[in-house]
Amino acid sequence: MSFDHKHLIDIAEYSDTDIMTLLETAKAFSEVNRRAIKKVPTLKGKTVVNMFNEPSTRTRSSFELAEKRLSADSLNCGGSSTSTVKGESLIDTVMTLDAYQIDMIIVRDKHAGAPYIITQHSPASVIDAGDGKHGHPTQALLDLYTIWQHRGRIEGLRVGIVGDIGHSRVCGSLIPALKIMGAEVTVVGPGTLMPACPDVLGVDHVNLNLDDVLPDLDVVYMLRIQKERLEGAPFPSLREYHGLYGLTRARERLMRPDALIAHPGPINRGVEFDSHMADHPVRSVILDQVYAGICVRMAALFLLLGGAENGLDS
Amino acid sequence: MSFDHKHLIDIAEYSDTDIMTLLETAKAFSEVNRRAIKKVPTLKGKTVVNMFNEPSTRTRSSFELAEKRLSADSLNCGGSSTSTVKGESLIDTVMTLDAYQIDMIIVRDKHAGAPYIITQHSPASVIDAGDGKHGHPTQALLDLYTIWQHRGRIEGLRVGIVGDIGHSRVCGSLIPALKIMGAEVTVVGPGTLMPACPDVLGVDHVNLNLDDVLPDLDVVYMLRIQKERLEGAPFPSLREYHGLYGLTRARERLMRPDALIAHPGPINRGVEFDSHMADHPVRSVILDQVYAGICVRMAALFLLLGGAENGLDS
Amino acid sequence: MSFDHKHLIDIAEYSDTDIMTLLETAKAFSEVNRRAIKKVPTLKGKTVVNMFNEPSTRTRSSFELAEKRLSADSLNCGGSSTSTVKGESLIDTVMTLDAYQIDMIIVRDKHAGAPYIITQHSPASVIDAGDGKHGHPTQALLDLYTIWQHRGRIEGLRVGIVGDIGHSRVCGSLIPALKIMGAEVTVVGPGTLMPACPDVLGVDHVNLNLDDVLPDLDVVYMLRIQKERLEGAPFPSLREYHGLYGLTRARERLMRPDALIAHPGPINRGVEFDSHMADHPVRSVILDQVYAGICVRMAALFLLLGGAENGLDS
Repeated sequence: MSFDHKHLIDIAEYSDTDIMTLLETAKAFSEVNRRAIKKVPTLKGKTVVNMFNEPSTRTRSSFELAEKRLSADSLNCGGSSTSTVKGESLIDTVMTLDAYQIDMIIVRDKHAGAPYIITQHSPASVIDAGDGKHGHPTQALLDLYTIWQHRGRIEGLRVGIVGDIGHSRVCGSLIPALKIMGAEVTVVGPGTLMPACPDVLGVDHVNLNLDDVLPDLDVVYMLRIQKERLEGAPFPSLREYHGLYGLTRARERLMRPDALIAHPGPINRGVEFDSHMADHPVRSVILDQVYAGICVRMAALFLLLGGAENGLDS
Repeated sequence: MSFDHKHLIDIAEYSDTDIMTLLETAKAFSEVNRRAIKKVPTLKGKTVVNMFNEPSTRTRSSFELAEKRLSADSLNCGGSSTSTVKGESLIDTVMTLDAYQIDMIIVRDKHAGAPYIITQHSPASVIDAGDGKHGHPTQALLDLYTIWQHRGRIEGLRVGIVGDIGHSRVCGSLIPALKIMGAEVTVVGPGTLMPACPDVLGVDHVNLNLDDVLPDLDVVYMLRIQKERLEGAPFPSLREYHGLYGLTRARERLMRPDALIAHPGPINRGVEFDSHMADHPVRSVILDQVYAGICVRMAALFLLLGGAENGLDS
Repeated sequence: MSFDHKHLIDIAEYSDTDIMTLLETAKAFSEVNRRAIKKVPTLKGKTVVNMFNEPSTRTRSSFELAEKRLSADSLNCGGSSTSTVKGESLIDTVMTLDAYQIDMIIVRDKHAGAPYIITQHSPASVIDAGDGKHGHPTQALLDLYTIWQHRGRIEGLRVGIVGDIGHSRVCGSLIPALKIMGAEVTVVGPGTLMPACPDVLGVDHVNLNLDDVLPDLDVVYMLRIQKERLEGAPFPSLREYHGLYGLTRARERLMRPDALIAHPGPINRGVEFDSHMADHPVRSVILDQVYAGICVRMAALFLLLGGAENGLDS
């Protein structure tokens, strides 16, 4: 198993082989997670800093659990309890943390590019846990993992991403990741929420009409709608959005019998979909995505911190 | 040792044998706590979520310590750092946590019934750490434990609960627990703080006059007074409350020589009692209650997570 | 190795031998920290409470890491999540924590004297992690450690402390510590930021002019300036402060070739120094101080919790 990355920030720097190594490692950790004792000593003595400068349940808690199950030491910083209230810059905070001889910094920040800046000032491994509207690579990996587990492959699948394409950090990582793995990607949403120049996304198709696209999709990936964004906008209103782009029971008839429904969470019931669709016993993989988050993050911690050299069977 | 519960929410569902099993197990953990190395590996690999949606020192920190001493992995969520700020519902949060394959959720919530709702949506064990004005079963168990340790029995003891009976979640669990164990229970307080229909409490006596009751009591259990509640009320004022229901030095003369003073904490010195009584070297068991909190919570974690099958001697 | 203290609050109660024992122990832990597995089981089963009632990155996180690397169980309390919001006093909170049979309380508080008050109500060991404008002994010890590592000795060195002498809790511990170890101490700063009676500091020299003093110093220790304090003051303004007391590139010419630059952090670039000086590759020991924080705190935890009896080689 060869894996030669130190950071997980720009998924476009990973090859299809790198991504498959990550997914295969996540699968091995999924087995660990199903054991009675879910803990392995793999990262004992490694120190991981969770620097979450924005609120987060899913991402933060699954990173924390991943660290605990690998026996790493975690340090939570960020938020109101830190020296940022004394006006210390991100760089000085990083240099401080770094003097503690930490091994990894996991960063969520409202500023796009913050994870990259950290790599310029610290010898630690860095994982981007969401930076502004830029990227969110572990989200993309857990999405790939979930699709792979349900379909056995990613190559050749037709994936539609629906919603606020222009402001989504999920898109920033998911679209390149899907393309690396050979999927066909369509983005769908109102023109007001599309980037001005959608060509730069690198997708195969752009469409304003969900009903046109739905019959062809193997995976329907609903993005979370920031209600604040629609409330101030001339078009669409929340109600119009739900009518035009919501995954309703009526719209299910347009879907392929085996099409999956995915969402990065947290979901807005009644906006992105009806509850019937969100909780669909066959199609919805939303909770599988949450579970995949632990496995993929354990894999990323393991591979980036050099676990590959030591093997997994400890 | 047989113990067949998955949740600890409604203490009335526990038999006297169940409760004694819990108290005996707590006693065994008390021995562990007095060792130089207070840690046992009993719950290694188990994941426990502390979901505290209201502030708490005692309950939260004693659960956290109990988890650490049993070597469980803890995840703290709740409060301002979570997705509830993004408008996610309790149920969606629980389903998310559950996808992490957690083993137990400990929940403090301002809404009565929240712990029960969680059991309807998660396969995890649930402990109610205080829900609205409804219940607080580990508080009741630590109270029983403290009385049992000081008196050698609970059956037949006369326990008076004094204060804001109508709004107390402590009462919601303590009264049924005392009745299950065979104690005689009297509630005392001003009519304005009594439930409109005190019969439903299941107590033996209701009395508005502390001085009438005090000479008969083996245990005087003072409830915490929410000052806000009295400040807006016509009667009693804080001063009147202290005069009529406060455990003062003068009132001590009415107490039996061996009567105990208990309180769930945090205490209001000068309201529920004089400092002399709160710190009484013989009568006050308030700090014993705090210590019992660790032991009882270790016991609850251990029994609910199936530790009984594995035995305690690991 | 003999070490006979229970608390670390008033550094003036430590002898030069005590301090050297601490520094030598910190050096041993520095070796541990450089290993691949940085963890030792020395304090397994010991419970340490981090009670931080004021924001802190450096001190809090380095204590937490020190605890983890020694395998202690940590409990974080303080801040908005605790019963202090219910009006519970410091003493009642301490008595509560103490009932959990904790072994140590590490306290940061805005009130000078809080750590001492805790020792009067708890059998736990207490470390002062900064109390008001009074003291900050682990800061002083990490400063000594850093100087000792760079110079091989402390005795006889000429140390200048520059800035807001009158309001600095760092001074409250650093000055006596330097004197115990035989250094020559000069304080420098504007008269408005000097104590009214600088004699009580116990320093060798007081000077208002940095340029007079700089050529003699082996260590230039810049205190952090609270910008709020200068913004309201008639003299000096921030700009004047930087001009008169800032360590600028121009002023470097006055320094001895081997003079070190130290600062307790977090730094204000452009106030206490130019970035050139803060990041000076040879002179600046600021990040060494941060690293020393872990080692010195591991040493303090180890020695105060009786580790000396058990030896370090576990």
